[in-house]
Amino acid sequence: MAKLVYRFQEGNKEMKHLLGGKGANLAEMVGLGVRVPPGFTITTEACNAYYTHDGQLFDSLIAEVKEHLQGLEEEMGKVLGSLENPLLVSVRSGAVFSMPGMMDTVLNLGLNDQVVEALAQQQDEKFAFDSYRRFIQMFSDVVMGVEKFHFEQVLSRIKAEKGYPEDKDIPAHELRQIVQEFKVIFLAQTGRTFPQDVEEQLFLAIEAVFRSWNNNRAKVYRRLHQISDSLGTAVNIQAMVFGNRGDESGTGVCFSRNPVDGSRELFGEYLINAQGEDVVAGIRTPKSIANLKEDKPAQYQELLGLVEELERHYQDMQDIEFTIEEGKLYLLQTRNAKRTAKAAVRVAVDLVKEGIIDKQEALLRLSAQEINQLLHPQFRPDSLAGAELLATGLAASPGAASGKIYFTAEEATKAAKQEKVILVREETSPEDIEGMVSAQAILTSRGGMTSHAAVVARGMGKSCVCGCQALQIDETTKTVRVGPHLLHEGDVLSIDGATGKVYLGALETSQDSHDEHFQELMTWADRIRPLKVYVNADNAADAKTGLGFGAEGIGLCRTEHMFFEEERIRTVRQMILAKSSEERSVYLDRLEPFQRDDFYQMFKVMEGRHLTIRLLDPPLHEFLPKEEEQIASLAADLGVSLVALKRQLHSLAEFNPMMGHRGCRLGITYPEIYLMQARAIARAALKARKEGTPVQADIMIPLVGIDKELTYLKNLIQTCLEEEMEQAGLRFDYSIGSMIEIPRACLTADQLATQAAFFSFGTNDLTQMTYGYSRDDASKFLESYLDKQILPQDPFVSLDESGVLELMKLAIEKARSVNPEIAIGICGEHGGDPVSIERCSDLGLDYVSCSPYRVLIARLAAAQSQIKKERQIWLDK
Amino acid sequence: MAKLVYRFQEGNKEMKHLLGGKGANLAEMVGLGVRVPPGFTITTEACNAYYTHDGQLFDSLIAEVKEHLQGLEEEMGKVLGSLENPLLVSVRSGAVFSMPGMMDTVLNLGLNDQVVEALAQQQDEKFAFDSYRRFIQMFSDVVMGVEKFHFEQVLSRIKAEKGYPEDKDIPAHELRQIVQEFKVIFLAQTGRTFPQDVEEQLFLAIEAVFRSWNNNRAKVYRRLHQISDSLGTAVNIQAMVFGNRGDESGTGVCFSRNPVDGSRELFGEYLINAQGEDVVAGIRTPKSIANLKEDKPAQYQELLGLVEELERHYQDMQDIEFTIEEGKLYLLQTRNAKRTAKAAVRVAVDLVKEGIIDKQEALLRLSAQEINQLLHPQFRPDSLAGAELLATGLAASPGAASGKIYFTAEEATKAAKQEKVILVREETSPEDIEGMVSAQAILTSRGGMTSHAAVVARGMGKSCVCGCQALQIDETTKTVRVGPHLLHEGDVLSIDGATGKVYLGALETSQDSHDEHFQELMTWADRIRPLKVYVNADNAADAKTGLGFGAEGIGLCRTEHMFFEEERIRTVRQMILAKSSEERSVYLDRLEPFQRDDFYQMFKVMEGRHLTIRLLDPPLHEFLPKEEEQIASLAADLGVSLVALKRQLHSLAEFNPMMGHRGCRLGITYPEIYLMQARAIARAALKARKEGTPVQADIMIPLVGIDKELTYLKNLIQTCLEEEMEQAGLRFDYSIGSMIEIPRACLTADQLATQAAFFSFGTNDLTQMTYGYSRDDASKFLESYLDKQILPQDPFVSLDESGVLELMKLAIEKARSVNPEIAIGICGEHGGDPVSIERCSDLGLDYVSCSPYRVLIARLAAAQSQIKKERQIWLDK
Repeated sequence: MAKLVYRFQEGNKEMKHLLGGKGANLAEMVGLGVRVPPGFTITTEACNAYYTHDGQLFDSLIAEVKEHLQGLEEEMGKVLGSLENPLLVSVRSGAVFSMPGMMDTVLNLGLNDQVVEALAQQQDEKFAFDSYRRFIQMFSDVVMGVEKFHFEQVLSRIKAEKGYPEDKDIPAHELRQIVQEFKVIFLAQTGRTFPQDVEEQLFLAIEAVFRSWNNNRAKVYRRLHQISDSLGTAVNIQAMVFGNRGDESGTGVCFSRNPVDGSRELFGEYLINAQGEDVVAGIRTPKSIANLKEDKPAQYQELLGLVEELERHYQDMQDIEFTIEEGKLYLLQTRNAKRTAKAAVRVAVDLVKEGIIDKQEALLRLSAQEINQLLHPQFRPDSLAGAELLATGLAASPGAASGKIYFTAEEATKAAKQEKVILVREETSPEDIEGMVSAQAILTSRGGMTSHAAVVARGMGKSCVCGCQALQIDETTKTVRVGPHLLHEGDVLSIDGATGKVYLGALETSQDSHDEHFQELMTWADRIRPLKVYVNADNAADAKTGLGFGAEGIGLCRTEHMFFEEERIRTVRQMILAKSSEERSVYLDRLEPFQRDDFYQMFKVMEGRHLTIRLLDPPLHEFLPKEEEQIASLAADLGVSLVALKRQLHSLAEFNPMMGHRGCRLGITYPEIYLMQARAIARAALKARKEGTPVQADIMIPLVGIDKELTYLKNLIQTCLEEEMEQAGLRFDYSIGSMIEIPRACLTADQLATQAAFFSFGTNDLTQMTYGYSRDDASKFLESYLDKQILPQDPFVSLDESGVLELMKLAIEKARSVNPEIAIGICGEHGGDPVSIERCSDLGLDYVSCSPYRVLIARLAAAQSQIKKERQIWLDK
Repeated sequence: MAKLVYRFQEGNKEMKHLLGGKGANLAEMVGLGVRVPPGFTITTEACNAYYTHDGQLFDSLIAEVKEHLQGLEEEMGKVLGSLENPLLVSVRSGAVFSMPGMMDTVLNLGLNDQVVEALAQQQDEKFAFDSYRRFIQMFSDVVMGVEKFHFEQVLSRIKAEKGYPEDKDIPAHELRQIVQEFKVIFLAQTGRTFPQDVEEQLFLAIEAVFRSWNNNRAKVYRRLHQISDSLGTAVNIQAMVFGNRGDESGTGVCFSRNPVDGSRELFGEYLINAQGEDVVAGIRTPKSIANLKEDKPAQYQELLGLVEELERHYQDMQDIEFTIEEGKLYLLQTRNAKRTAKAAVRVAVDLVKEGIIDKQEALLRLSAQEINQLLHPQFRPDSLAGAELLATGLAASPGAASGKIYFTAEEATKAAKQEKVILVREETSPEDIEGMVSAQAILTSRGGMTSHAAVVARGMGKSCVCGCQALQIDETTKTVRVGPHLLHEGDVLSIDGATGKVYLGALETSQDSHDEHFQELMTWADRIRPLKVYVNADNAADAKTGLGFGAEGIGLCRTEHMFFEEERIRTVRQMILAKSSEERSVYLDRLEPFQRDDFYQMFKVMEGRHLTIRLLDPPLHEFLPKEEEQIASLAADLGVSLVALKRQLHSLAEFNPMMGHRGCRLGITYPEIYLMQARAIARAALKARKEGTPVQADIMIPLVGIDKELTYLKNLIQTCLEEEMEQAGLRFDYSIGSMIEIPRACLTADQLATQAAFFSFGTNDLTQMTYGYSRDDASKFLESYLDKQILPQDPFVSLDESGVLELMKLAIEKARSVNPEIAIGICGEHGGDPVSIERCSDLGLDYVSCSPYRVLIARLAAAQSQIKKERQIWLDK
């Protein structure tokens, strides 16, 4: 078997897959000569081997760990479990991709009842017992699964009884007592005494790290971030350095730039006389790193130098953990820093300007999720003007949101199915992940900018205010007191994660992505990408929003949404239930002016850009009422009996509406409906043209599967348009094309392409039919499919490569073979998914069309895929 | 423009597409020197040109007709409209494919008030006025759309008043009077006087033939027989010869062999002193052709000679119309004869034995519809034993059927949606086509073996008894009196079209195709075809039936049907509604013995032949009750509240069940269900093996779309089977394969084929998903699609070439590229469709599987497609 354990000296940052992110970076720092406590890394392969050995540590691994432990003891001149010269170590997980809070850490391992006494004698009693109580607490939690609150109750009680403000104020004799109580808790909860054999401690901790790879919250996180389950985690065993060795010691976390806005300044927090977990866990509220300049000037300067060096070395903003032990600075970790989208943009642009990376690299640095975050809403100034400010916390993750408050992740998740929810917690922990995913925003009363809530919310691009100390949360009564206000579960708050402000009641939001750095980056993107980006917009307002985000045209205007407005739906229903084609035409004539005005408004906004209008698509029964009361009212409208109407509604119902009487099938059975739409388009276009507005109308026929459907409908529509133009004595530019969303349309694309001016892939339906999945029903088994890894991902999110993309490829080849000029795009939801956009770019599509808030993502993704293509060509040379 | 009119001398039988079947055969006979009344044919292209000229006769056509008319006048030495020497002609349609009764004929054209008087003077008054009254009647009906009953009422009244038994007994002076009355009727019904201009008569008649091509019943017939609307009809203008010129004249129809059983004898009917329409319209009951031997020995011998000559010439059994005019025999038509399937088989086999055709040709002569007819049921002897015979008519078309009687086509069609129906009419006419299609059987009180009812029913392979004179039908009171019995609409009769017997009440039927000629033909088919034929059978009885028809294995055994039996369905429902996997297993354990016994019975029948078992396919909610009462009873069974059960049922419902939680998706989410089935198969197989019965179990996984579905389930099932075999210390042969019914399965067939031992195309679902059609809903638009010729045919009947077949081809290529040994078949309903079987044979499939009663068709179609392939290879050489 391959080598399973590496000394830090043996690794480097390229070995992430083997050593995990943390291990590889520790090794890299050692290589750079940075002061890092010595240690070694058990590889991710060892973790996988552990699982193939039925979750048992195996002999060769045990032997290799022991051998490296001995090496570490020799290097440190200390021995694990020795009473003379005890070595203490930390045991930390380190996966390939950073998974904050997901994996578990044990500090101070190597302490037992005897070692602690020896340490107390050699060093300092308070330090020794503080370390021991921390060790028992962490070991119990991480290795044995004893819940933390058992221990925290004790600490809180003693602090309260004796009036110690913080943990660090508890004196040595109390800590001794606490350790006794902790050991009793351990015995009560686990049924065994706290392990005194230090090697047993070590191997139990290693196993716990391995096991934690497959705990539920790790799986949820991986699913959320599409990380493969087969990567495994590494384990880092490292000699302890102590930030809790008195006031010349401390520990902190810092960023090489501001992770909120990206400005160039050292940013971070630290605690004096504390261990690292105190900072990240948000148990004590730490001081800003700026204070360190005065508190510990020498160490501050040293840190500043190291941070700059590491940033240049890694060519990216760094997130660094450090510990000062009795004045001596150690780095415990460096990694590319998580940051807000705003910061990511600024950092990327600044790094280009500082000559550290080039523009293409800068573009590749930005992810779709970050762009999403940029698009997060802000409260509208007018709404804010009258708002009642409740409290202010730390502005941990930008974005504004309103919602009903819930105090547990479970209840928040449940409620979020019906309404917008804000999760309110003293502090969050990995157990809360699902609640955080489903909430609009997260509000905590404790913890700093690097607390769990803050880090995770930024990663999700979700609004978060943390450390809002004015909140007195009572989980049992489901209330929160803020000064004079007592709020209950379900009350509404508004949260601005960009300012840290919390308001009473709901506020209106607006969105803005006019950041100068971002604008600059997007102009770089636009210069690189050949793929056009259109927007899916059903009305003038959406069209404007889309153009504002840089869309170059409308790739999908769904006309059915226009039918639902209150003043129209009645006529729509009368039209549908008409007994004859003549009667139907009467109602269609009433609808035409509405549609005409809709299209007119859009032509005015588009000013000659492509406006792709899809003719009526859903089955007619979707427009009909479902509730008893509405049916009765409709019957009265129509002057028919309730029984007769119900019979008619029943006859229109379908077993599988997705594959029923919809799309162009409606146009063929009821040509008068499509004719009305064509007439409305023509008249709207002619009105705009009369006013001097240029017009490009692209009429798109949905659900085409047979060439003759297109022949029939194209002829119908063309005749109508030409008649209207002739009558008006004026012309406008138009084209007629086809949705490609039925497998048969792909297979017969050559037959369709001779008649269509353009194709637009409707990949939602195409995915449904290629897989035979009804999107409305697939949730019943898709979960199982993802769990059992039968599907690598939800095919409705990213285009399926083996099936759907194959069909698209076939269609494109067939179409271009007979009509090389045909414009081909995509307007399904995949058009806003970065991975899918890359595939579309590879296929040589002309455009992608997506919802307004995905336009920026699409512009970036299109540029990124072009850059990757060019780099590949470069590599292939 | 090309030549639009051909003299009979200019054509031959190869020119069917231009001259129609009748015209081409008339020309052929002229070429052979047979005595045929002279004439000419207006081409099918002229008909199409008529339609492109907006349904107007156009100048060049009119000129060409006139030119040929003049030629005919010269040849005959008679002139149309002449008082000295008047020419009378017939105008008949003649489509490319024979469409009995669909198109219309006018005889005796050229008569008017003056010509009839001239003819009466020159020839015979009675003959002249009989011809004129016929002409007015036919012209009014066919050309002007005046309903026949107006005229028939007059004839019936006069015969009754004056006591003339038959039409031919009406004397001249009465005929004169009748003509006057007919002209009054014409005026009253059309608002104009009967046209006296004989050229106007001619052109009106020609137009009427053209127009009749697009009348509704012609369209229905073409749809039914898949004849293209664009073929058009030819028009034959032919000098009249008269069978109604007294007792030395007559007219008849004869077959060169018996069209009911195929035996070698002259078969047919004739009437003395009658025109052709009298025989085929079934107005008078004609004499058997055997009588002609005594009545007119010379003409009989001449006819016999001509019939034999024509049969040898056409190498097929002929259907011939003849007229004897004052002792002189003329042939008016010959064509390949329609015949029962029994006759078709015997004729084909006999022609081989007589050295006229070879075996391959004989096989090609039989159609699927004929085989279908062979499979028609007969009454079971035990059921017949106690049956009450009501009446006996002519055995016009074989097959036994019971049903409720209806007296109009419209009511029969309506009722047939709910129940089995027998259409009872005095006589049928083309207007009744739809009623005949939907009825189980047809019973008429008038008309002979070549009447409309008899000919059409034989063509449809539908049971028919005609000329059952004991019936006194009263359409207005919806009753039929038969001796002492008075039957009402909705009363049940049983009809045996093979014996002509009509019974009271319902009788049980059985089926039999053990005809020695047929068995011989099928052994020829089996020797030729390489494609195997399997049967779809869900139980031992169906399996036996399938083997009886010559199936070589079972290609599809649907296990879900086994779940519906009354003693099981309760357990099935408890299983489905189980709250946990453990609870579900309890109920599955109860179901397993049932399934085991089902499979055991089938293994015993199959004796080592392939038994392909498809694991559970439909969504589970299909097994749950829908009616309030059943739901309440289930709630009681389960011990849950009605509300709770309804909630659970609601949660299981799906929007698009076709694309929902079904097929292998069930196997993946509830592996315990497939495991139970695998266990039942294993135990059944082992039981059979213990008894020495060989076993070949092919386990088929439905709805596979992803390779990993197959990996997961194959592993699951294989493990279970191996365990069971190990435990039993005995093995059986098995394989595991996949349905291919999802487009994605075709696209990824190479990934699937490495794991599957066999593929079976499920073309029902594949067609649904390739088109995006829900079969349950498609009726809402498919009708329109066929009407507007957007689809050439229903893709659920014959495999779609551009879409579904392309996917199948792709799948086969991909599969065989990685697994050349893989067995590939089809088990969708297309597996029993002859055209689709030909495509499957072309694709190189190993087998087709179809329902038991399609097995014979499949065996024949497989042979035919092989013969065609070999002939093509021969042609290509």
